[in-house]
Amino acid sequence: SSRGCPAEDMEKEWETLRAWKERMGQELDRVVAFWMEHSHDQEHGGFFTCLGRDGQVWMYCRLYRKFQRFRRSELLDSAKAGGEFLLRYARVAPPDKKCAFVLTQSGLPVKVQRTIFSECFYTMAMSGDPALLHLFYQNEAVEMMDQIIHWVREDSSGLGRPQLPGAPAAESMAVPMMLLNLVDQLGEADEELAGKYAELGDWCAQRILQHVQRDGQAVLENVSEDGKELSGCLGRHQNPGHALEAGWFLLRHALRKGNPELRAHAIEKFLLLSFHSGWDPEHGGLFYFQDADNLCPTQLEWDMKLWWPHSEAMIAFLMGYSDSGDPALLHLFYQVAEYTFRQFRDPEYGEWFGYLNREGKVALTIKGGPFKGLVLLCSVQTLPPRPPPPPPPLTPDSH
Amino acid sequence: SSRGCPAEDMEKEWETLRAWKERMGQELDRVVAFWMEHSHDQEHGGFFTCLGRDGQVWMYCRLYRKFQRFRRSELLDSAKAGGEFLLRYARVAPPDKKCAFVLTQSGLPVKVQRTIFSECFYTMAMSGDPALLHLFYQNEAVEMMDQIIHWVREDSSGLGRPQLPGAPAAESMAVPMMLLNLVDQLGEADEELAGKYAELGDWCAQRILQHVQRDGQAVLENVSEDGKELSGCLGRHQNPGHALEAGWFLLRHALRKGNPELRAHAIEKFLLLSFHSGWDPEHGGLFYFQDADNLCPTQLEWDMKLWWPHSEAMIAFLMGYSDSGDPALLHLFYQVAEYTFRQFRDPEYGEWFGYLNREGKVALTIKGGPFKGLVLLCSVQTLPPRPPPPPPPLTPDSH
Repeated sequence: SSRGCPAEDMEKEWETLRAWKERMGQELDRVVAFWMEHSHDQEHGGFFTCLGRDGQVWMYCRLYRKFQRFRRSELLDSAKAGGEFLLRYARVAPPDKKCAFVLTQSGLPVKVQRTIFSECFYTMAMSGDPALLHLFYQNEAVEMMDQIIHWVREDSSGLGRPQLPGAPAAESMAVPMMLLNLVDQLGEADEELAGKYAELGDWCAQRILQHVQRDGQAVLENVSEDGKELSGCLGRHQNPGHALEAGWFLLRHALRKGNPELRAHAIEKFLLLSFHSGWDPEHGGLFYFQDADNLCPTQLEWDMKLWWPHSEAMIAFLMGYSDSGDPALLHLFYQVAEYTFRQFRDPEYGEWFGYLNREGKVALTIKGGPFKGLVLLCSVQTLPPRPPPPPPPLTPDSH
Repeated sequence: SSRGCPAEDMEKEWETLRAWKERMGQELDRVVAFWMEHSHDQEHGGFFTCLGRDGQVWMYCRLYRKFQRFRRSELLDSAKAGGEFLLRYARVAPPDKKCAFVLTQSGLPVKVQRTIFSECFYTMAMSGDPALLHLFYQNEAVEMMDQIIHWVREDSSGLGRPQLPGAPAAESMAVPMMLLNLVDQLGEADEELAGKYAELGDWCAQRILQHVQRDGQAVLENVSEDGKELSGCLGRHQNPGHALEAGWFLLRHALRKGNPELRAHAIEKFLLLSFHSGWDPEHGGLFYFQDADNLCPTQLEWDMKLWWPHSEAMIAFLMGYSDSGDPALLHLFYQVAEYTFRQFRDPEYGEWFGYLNREGKVALTIKGGPFKGLVLLCSVQTLPPRPPPPPPPLTPDSH
């Protein structure tokens, strides 16, 4: 790509990017059609497969709001039916705020996790869009958010996990990462809420940054509460998909705050470093789990390739490129997108496979499951469709 | 093998079997040497890697007691140090009987499961051998056993798992299977205890048999408490290794009770049926999980090959053969043993790999981990070393 004049190169790049945008758009249409057809429960409201985590209420609101072609009443009606179902059944023992991870079709709780994540996804769903849904939902989202903050920053005993003297006071990066996403979500269209959670957003960013360890050479999933590496395999545990996802949220936070140092740090450590250590040089794709000392992880599924880290990576690299114009980020987007469309997409029945083995063979044929719902593509779609800015001078650091 | 006269055939069979016994014996020596070298904590007692489940106390007692060549003081001393460590630290909050699943090196609890299994393995360890260990241990084993029975048959609330209205009252086969093993273990050398737990043994066998479903065509891991198939993927879930293990325990129970119907049923349903549906026709080896309708399981590791189902299968088939003389069972033992020794054994560093991918490639290089300790071979070793009885008439059923 170093042949030809810069203007021609830029034009070509732009064409490639546009082709990807179109491909993503077509994919999004297929995926939404798949879920519209298969996941709705006409009888009870709600969606089949994994209400807690699939975020279908949020996703449908988002699609309705951001895309002309999804401004269809059946999408909004489904989101509303799902929202009503969640409102009615998700909380296991109101007024207690703990939410179920799995519900039966008629809304009885089957499983409750002792973490904050079901409650976070509940908050996401309830914050889907105050203009579209009941205003009441927004209050529900804020109340749940405040409960989550209490669990994370004050007292976690309400989550039901016993405090054991041998268990280190570890922080999983997933926690501040998820919270930062909620802060962004709640503040997006509501300045009052943006103000209310501004300090929390900075706190989350600060806590996420503590997971960069070993003189900046590794992002670790678990660190001590004061930001030190933990001993043993818990401390060495890495989750490249989470690191890339955290990079996306940090980058967005940095852009909103106008913080160029944070932006550069997010790109360097959470996007580039995590990608280069997490990508399988032999078969392509991102590993699910790794060990920072290259020892063997203890999780049986560590070398599998999952759809979601690849979605996070595509979003993160496109956002980084869209902001910086650095072609290195664009080319990493291409690398992930090519792998992802080649390996995860199901050309026959629609939607994507979620779980491949290390070699890229489909290991599970399910399209939805306890941890997988509608594939996350609309964030890629909503990136500003503008031509790339002029490429910056090429320095060794930008590759 | 149908050529030659029957006597010659039998002689050849016997030679093959003896060769396998020798190979197993050598393997056992290597494996024990591995754990003697790597797992002992001289400072605190206990063993590194997963005290709760590896059963090293029980295993060392067993080896000491059953094998002339393991009647070595360091083995007994290690078992005692491990026993003392468990006695002192395993119970999280005495007098409560709940045991930790993971302890730190110095004995602080790290993780507690809301099941009976850590307590079952604690009972196993404490019942290692009353003559070798403290008599006090035996009392501890019986007290824990009575607590476990209370949790299983009377009231499970002490396990800490909330009762959720949407969760079906399901019985995992692992529960009566594990209990039956404990009944056998405790009663083995103690007639009083054998009497105390006789009714429980029959109850366990009865409950295990309820997991044979679909007109005898499938062993299901989870059924309702009154022995009906459950709906959804929970109901269709199969665990071939558990089915074979249950077959081993049922067979032993049937032999002790002199119950030929139960013996035949254990062989037909839990050994032969489970093996034939659980064996991967393409790459060999037993699947970890399956779905009774051949749908895709939701567990990411479903198609992996784990060491323990293969150990259970070898033990079960040899026990079945040793009792019946049916060469079909012997040939299944060969089939499993050949796969197992070819794929799991680590010729370089000793011990076995525990986790292979579907194709048989090593997926995790760990020798011990949260769920893997010393490889279970001594039960194969202790089978009666007698020549096989004359083969029974070959009927279609025996193949």
